[in-house]
Amino acid sequence: MITVIFAHPYPDRSVANRTLIESIAGLDGVEVRSLYDRYPDFAIDAEAERESLEAASTVVWQHPIQWYTVPALLKLWFERVLINGWAWGPGGEALRGKRCLWAVTTGGDEQDYSESGIHGRGFEAFEPVVRRTAEFCGMAWLDPFVVWGARQLDPEMLREHGKRYRARLASLEED
Amino acid sequence: MITVIFAHPYPDRSVANRTLIESIAGLDGVEVRSLYDRYPDFAIDAEAERESLEAASTVVWQHPIQWYTVPALLKLWFERVLINGWAWGPGGEALRGKRCLWAVTTGGDEQDYSESGIHGRGFEAFEPVVRRTAEFCGMAWLDPFVVWGARQLDPEMLREHGKRYRARLASLEED
Repeated sequence: MITVIFAHPYPDRSVANRTLIESIAGLDGVEVRSLYDRYPDFAIDAEAERESLEAASTVVWQHPIQWYTVPALLKLWFERVLINGWAWGPGGEALRGKRCLWAVTTGGDEQDYSESGIHGRGFEAFEPVVRRTAEFCGMAWLDPFVVWGARQLDPEMLREHGKRYRARLASLEED
Repeated sequence: MITVIFAHPYPDRSVANRTLIESIAGLDGVEVRSLYDRYPDFAIDAEAERESLEAASTVVWQHPIQWYTVPALLKLWFERVLINGWAWGPGGEALRGKRCLWAVTTGGDEQDYSESGIHGRGFEAFEPVVRRTAEFCGMAWLDPFVVWGARQLDPEMLREHGKRYRARLASLEED
């Protein structure tokens, strides 16, 4: 089982992320949970979220990068769902040993994420916040899935990324 | 003018952050805006927030570190307030040249933020997300103000940190 926690603030206006989500439709054992569709008022049902994670062997956090990290509702999800005694701390073993895949789209291309680029750092400089969140809960961090320069991609290229995403999730589900 | 954007999810239950906020009470030219008091339902008045920043020469983001970065409501504040055409992009000059101070408390002590510590990285590994947000808007990044191991500090030590915080802000306001 793979649980995809999908966080796009405007799912209807998304192009790249929607293509990725559509590309994994029908994959056996994959559940997609669109946070902004479920919780437009930020009132997360943390119990339901935790339940959806329990059966998963892989947790995917999929979203556009916004201000170098996760959108606000996914940050709130971290705070409400990944609680002491469940995800970490004494008795907090629920996620231990699961795999975590960070699947993101960026507005900027790979060159923008470099010392000479507009963001001044390689993308890996922004990974520790999310990676350590997963690792603090005992999850195994996978190589992130990144779609660079998502806003500049034509539909054909987006579909190619979609295929790559579907193949990545399929291989994880087979493991 | 210094605008302190204060983000503690439970301001009434805060000990360390409340001490810091109390310690800067009455400082000339300092405005404190408590986001979770103002916007408990996450409905940020972005116009009002932008107005409060315009007069400031220094912007302070004060909060407890939660999952290695800002609390969700401050992340939402980044997304809603720091918009294209105002904070960045063509015509987005509103914050250019202002200083930005990141003022945080951590649950873990400094040793926890090291390769051998529970967080596996030095604290500086988690700085780029917030720092680049400020810098992308043209703000000058100051050395962060950090209170380590805030939950373990007794009232006397917290008051000492409060004095240090007040002195830091006073020196910025004099500049």
